Amino acid sequence: MAKSKIKPLSDRVLVQPEPAEEKTSSGIIIPDTAKEKPQEGTVVAAGPGKVENGTKIDMSVKEGDKVLYGKYSGTEITLDGDEYLIMREADILGIVS
Amino acid sequence: MAKSKIKPLSDRVLVQPEPAEEKTSSGIIIPDTAKEKPQEGTVVAAGPGKVENGTKIDMSVKEGDKVLYGKYSGTEITLDGDEYLIMREADILGIVS
Amino acid sequence: MAKSKIKPLSDRVLVQPEPAEEKTSSGIIIPDTAKEKPQEGTVVAAGPGKVENGTKIDMSVKEGDKVLYGKYSGTEITLDGDEYLIMREADILGIVS
Amino acid sequence: MAKSKIKPLSDRVLVQPEPAEEKTSSGIIIPDTAKEKPQEGTVVAAGPGKVENGTKIDMSVKEGDKVLYGKYSGTEITLDGDEYLIMREADILGIVS
Amino acid sequence: MAKSKIKPLSDRVLVQPEPAEEKTSSGIIIPDTAKEKPQEGTVVAAGPGKVENGTKIDMSVKEGDKVLYGKYSGTEITLDGDEYLIMREADILGIVS
Amino acid sequence: MAKSKIKPLSDRVLVQPEPAEEKTSSGIIIPDTAKEKPQEGTVVAAGPGKVENGTKIDMSVKEGDKVLYGKYSGTEITLDGDEYLIMREADILGIVS
Amino acid sequence: MAKSKIKPLSDRVLVQPEPAEEKTSSGIIIPDTAKEKPQEGTVVAAGPGKVENGTKIDMSVKEGDKVLYGKYSGTEITLDGDEYLIMREADILGIVS
Repeated sequence: MAKSKIKPLSDRVLVQPEPAEEKTSSGIIIPDTAKEKPQEGTVVAAGPGKVENGTKIDMSVKEGDKVLYGKYSGTEITLDGDEYLIMREADILGIVS
Repeated sequence: MAKSKIKPLSDRVLVQPEPAEEKTSSGIIIPDTAKEKPQEGTVVAAGPGKVENGTKIDMSVKEGDKVLYGKYSGTEITLDGDEYLIMREADILGIVS
Repeated sequence: MAKSKIKPLSDRVLVQPEPAEEKTSSGIIIPDTAKEKPQEGTVVAAGPGKVENGTKIDMSVKEGDKVLYGKYSGTEITLDGDEYLIMREADILGIVS
Repeated sequence: MAKSKIKPLSDRVLVQPEPAEEKTSSGIIIPDTAKEKPQEGTVVAAGPGKVENGTKIDMSVKEGDKVLYGKYSGTEITLDGDEYLIMREADILGIVS
Repeated sequence: MAKSKIKPLSDRVLVQPEPAEEKTSSGIIIPDTAKEKPQEGTVVAAGPGKVENGTKIDMSVKEGDKVLYGKYSGTEITLDGDEYLIMREADILGIVS
Repeated sequence: MAKSKIKPLSDRVLVQPEPAEEKTSSGIIIPDTAKEKPQEGTVVAAGPGKVENGTKIDMSVKEGDKVLYGKYSGTEITLDGDEYLIMREADILGIVS
Repeated sequence: MAKSKIKPLSDRVLVQPEPAEEKTSSGIIIPDTAKEKPQEGTVVAAGPGKVENGTKIDMSVKEGDKVLYGKYSGTEITLDGDEYLIMREADILGIVS
């Protein structure tokens, strides 16, 4: 079965958040609501870049980049049962390598 | 009987929201107020694009595109008994394919 | 007796709101305060267009256009006993045809 | 005795509000606080126009124009005992003729 | 003894407010807190003008001009025991003559 | 021992506030919290100027200038035990001479 | 083991805050919550600079610079167990030398 695909508009990127750790270091399983919201993820799709006064601004991130983003950035969407975030490139703080 | 037609102005688009699921997976019918507001819809009409400092910015979506949008985006209007949303292209997060 | 005339400034338009239905489908007359504020109207006069950095932006609506606008758009004015709205073109969502 | 004169700066206009009706149609005199604040007035003096990025934007109203403005527009000033309003041209909705 | 001098920066002006009337027309002396804050004053010093995108915008007021300004405009400063206001030219409504 | 040095960025200036008077005219020593926060100070270091659309805007103040600033302007920093303020040039009202 | 690396986007910088003093001058150890949040740090990585209307604005800080920043600037991130801040260059007040 083919997966749904999202083509983000403007300078938006579709990010798959990294799963939060489900166990503490001592092995205790953290119930779902206590888990820290992840701030790291992988770019799954990137828009074409925003247009400013008729000039297109190139994107600085691309598919596959592992990125850091602020805790409350983006809009959560569910795609084929998985959770994603759509955010503007300006919400991405940096690329992790 | 001919249907009413809306020509959106500037960078606005007329979107027909996808109907929310009316049954849960176990077959229980959800009463109207408990249904999640849909965030997916189909572009029914798109404006000519916004003018910025005398330059027209082309639209990135067109009639027929299936789009994702934020939960509280747009203005609800009723046309011939059907519910639509008029929103700015900037409220559209991405195109679904 | 000649009617008063308004020449809207900048990108403003003078809109005559469509009268709200005064009867429900079952024939009950709705008292004035319960009537839904109309969101549809007819452009009675349009300004010359707004000037942005020395460039005049042409208007997208003209006299006679039937338009949709947001519920709280515009300033209400009374002219020769009739109610009108003066709003900016940016408050007009689309043209109905 | 010569009257004081105000030369408004930038895109401001000095407006003399139209006196509110002091009698209702049945002849009852309305006490001062119950009178509706007028929204119509006459331009007594107009500034030279605002400068935007080095370009002067010409004024759309001139001395003598009868104008409509929003209820809370402008700053009230008293000149030789008379009440006036100084407002920006952007606060003027239209010219009445 | 030489007086202190202020050279306002950008598009700021130093204004000496006109003293509020200390007696009512019937000769009663008004205690200090009941006096209306003056809205008229004299320009004592004017800045060189603000720079916008590399272009200097000339000032519209000059030393000696009697000006009108909004009630809460400017920052109060005390210079050699006298009260002054430093405000932006945009806070000045007009020139009185 | 060499003193620490700050090179302000953009259009910021490092200002040493003038010490508030510690005695009233009658010789009573004012406890620390009752002293009025000074609004006058001396520029100790000035940034290179802000860049606007690729053009550098020259600074209007320089090291050694005695300046006036608003009561709540700037960020307080402690350098080698002394209190300073770092503020944007736009927070400086004028130069005192 | 190689350390993680962050490449900040746009005009962002990755700053390693200077550890707050853990003892008062009299030798008392301050519990963790009473420590003043440091406002000084070292630039660990700097972005390429922000793009404004198609023009890239060069950065004024570089790796290794010791910088001052406002108390609530930046987003805290944890990298390999160490605390860092990612902030915009505009949040940096000056360079310490």
